[in-house]
Amino acid sequence: MHIVHVFVHVKPGTAEDFIHATMINARASVTTEPGCVRFDVVRRQDYPSRFVLVEVYRTPEDAASHKLTPHYTAWRDTVGPMMAEARTSVVFTNVFPETEKGWECVL
Amino acid sequence: MHIVHVFVHVKPGTAEDFIHATMINARASVTTEPGCVRFDVVRRQDYPSRFVLVEVYRTPEDAASHKLTPHYTAWRDTVGPMMAEARTSVVFTNVFPETEKGWECVL
Repeated sequence: MHIVHVFVHVKPGTAEDFIHATMINARASVTTEPGCVRFDVVRRQDYPSRFVLVEVYRTPEDAASHKLTPHYTAWRDTVGPMMAEARTSVVFTNVFPETEKGWECVL
Repeated sequence: MHIVHVFVHVKPGTAEDFIHATMINARASVTTEPGCVRFDVVRRQDYPSRFVLVEVYRTPEDAASHKLTPHYTAWRDTVGPMMAEARTSVVFTNVFPETEKGWECVL
């Protein structure tokens, strides 16, 4: 799998709007992109203005395709002004689970 | 959900042994601990001596119970000498999926 962790830090007062916009993007990604297996969104307990998007794609091409979708571009434009600093990301390969089945999200 | 990201940096030459030991621990965690919903292991593409354990528990108590299991203590003792630096961790709460069902791992 091609796994991207995206690190987000939002400005004070924007977290709820960020969550709203991000949940729309996450749900659309896992339900409409065949190459997007999971799109988890988590929030730091000790620093609630910081989030991580845990995006799991079948291939690098699927990750690239995600950025062409209308839900991604709408999300990017909506959350842009909410960023306290530029987003960063790190790319991983799965070790465990070994199979694609082990990564699939059942909503 | 109570989600823990554990950041691991292993010494040169130990990655394959680390993977072997960690897969045993990950599989035992998701298959024998009712409170451990996922135990994903990912490896950085740009820095393959760095890993993240993405551990998803139902409650904080389930995360604490994990550290009392024989598979955890065996793993801890096995991988200890492989660490290039001390492990660090960050604790999160789920935003999406909202439901426990969306986090469950089917191996």
